Amino acid sequence: MSETVKAAFVTAAVLVIGDEILSGRTQDTNSSYIAKWLGEVGVQLREIRVVPDIQDEIVAALNALRARYDYVFTTGGIGPTHDDITADAVATAFGVGIDYHPQAMEILGAHYAPGEFTAARKRMARIPDGADLIENPISKAPGFKIGNVFVMAGIPVVMHAMLESIRHRLVGGARVLSKAVGGAVAEGQVAEALGALHVEFPDVSFGSYPYYRDNGYGVNFVMRSTDAKQLGEAVDGVRQMIRDVGAEPVEGN
Amino acid sequence: MSETVKAAFVTAAVLVIGDEILSGRTQDTNSSYIAKWLGEVGVQLREIRVVPDIQDEIVAALNALRARYDYVFTTGGIGPTHDDITADAVATAFGVGIDYHPQAMEILGAHYAPGEFTAARKRMARIPDGADLIENPISKAPGFKIGNVFVMAGIPVVMHAMLESIRHRLVGGARVLSKAVGGAVAEGQVAEALGALHVEFPDVSFGSYPYYRDNGYGVNFVMRSTDAKQLGEAVDGVRQMIRDVGAEPVEGN
Repeated sequence: MSETVKAAFVTAAVLVIGDEILSGRTQDTNSSYIAKWLGEVGVQLREIRVVPDIQDEIVAALNALRARYDYVFTTGGIGPTHDDITADAVATAFGVGIDYHPQAMEILGAHYAPGEFTAARKRMARIPDGADLIENPISKAPGFKIGNVFVMAGIPVVMHAMLESIRHRLVGGARVLSKAVGGAVAEGQVAEALGALHVEFPDVSFGSYPYYRDNGYGVNFVMRSTDAKQLGEAVDGVRQMIRDVGAEPVEGN
Repeated sequence: MSETVKAAFVTAAVLVIGDEILSGRTQDTNSSYIAKWLGEVGVQLREIRVVPDIQDEIVAALNALRARYDYVFTTGGIGPTHDDITADAVATAFGVGIDYHPQAMEILGAHYAPGEFTAARKRMARIPDGADLIENPISKAPGFKIGNVFVMAGIPVVMHAMLESIRHRLVGGARVLSKAVGGAVAEGQVAEALGALHVEFPDVSFGSYPYYRDNGYGVNFVMRSTDAKQLGEAVDGVRQMIRDVGAEPVEGN
């Protein structure tokens, strides 16, 4: 992808916090969901990191990512149990205090039956100083935004709802358009032609993703650009490249 | 988890290379597969990073990870097309040259029909100086190992086969045992009891993962330890904790 295209990007990173992902017990689907969602609002996901439930690891990763990208989205570790240390880690990363947030206390206090708003549940109202709450319409315990960092729950349905709550707070950049075309070809058959297209259309990125399925193998080509005209011409070039080796282009999204 | 347990760990990181993951088009399942596979051989996955197909990004991430963990596993970017830059990036990260590897040339030359071993396909035989090949029984183009870094394909079936090829090269550490128990409880109901167990069993890690499903909500508790006896006692404690709030423990794996 050319520097011209990159310069127009608003960038983001996702920081997934959770031993359960690193043990392989839970398949992270949040990153992929956020990636697609960000694409729609004109923000390009440029890095994903998954770190364990260890404060120093969260702090170091968050400070590296928030300095580098326009936005950082964290998922996980904001519940009521002892392994939920994200809020403290974020406060440490930003060098600010953390305390029971009045509005969060009010939301949670109203949510639980009398006597059930326990000390453990009150932990979920502990928010770094200066942060704004992110609404959680599902289970009430809020996320929060501090600086360029959005701190969200790890449970997918809750995270999805929190993303919708923050959509209006994001300023997107150039929206990257994409188009996929596949074919029953081998990468090695078309690599030279694809390299030539890559040179001919410097403002288009060309991805080449081979697959093996029960009914045969092939390659999906994914072209991405902020320029619709260049993208269309590049995709035409890929279709022709597939036909040139005797295969039929299969249109994707 | 206590420092005692940590000290016995052999650690690893996964570096996923690929724009297709960052765009959300492709769901990364390789990290999760590697995580579980490593657990079986006594290696603990401690970090996952996903970076784009940009050489400087790959080099920086690889150098950060290989200095920090016992092993690094990369996936993606070793095919024949212009966006397959992993081998070059790894050579740059290690400060070594890269050239057509005689054995890789032989393997690939034997695989393709006469005249089909094109310049693009020969690119897949370019291996950093000093690296050992990793066998690819599926599509022949080899991965490689250099230092503590294992460079593998991104296509899941190929990556799985490569992992089996390298199993004998890994030296595992203490194997972490784990056991899951669930219950139809709310985290906030049991957070204090869980915190007490966490203190009582310092060599056991306690994870708490709430879920929302169509038929209700609950929490899965995952206990991990290298000590089978401590783990058993901790799991008994979690079962009791679930019963104490009027729910029935559901055994997991």
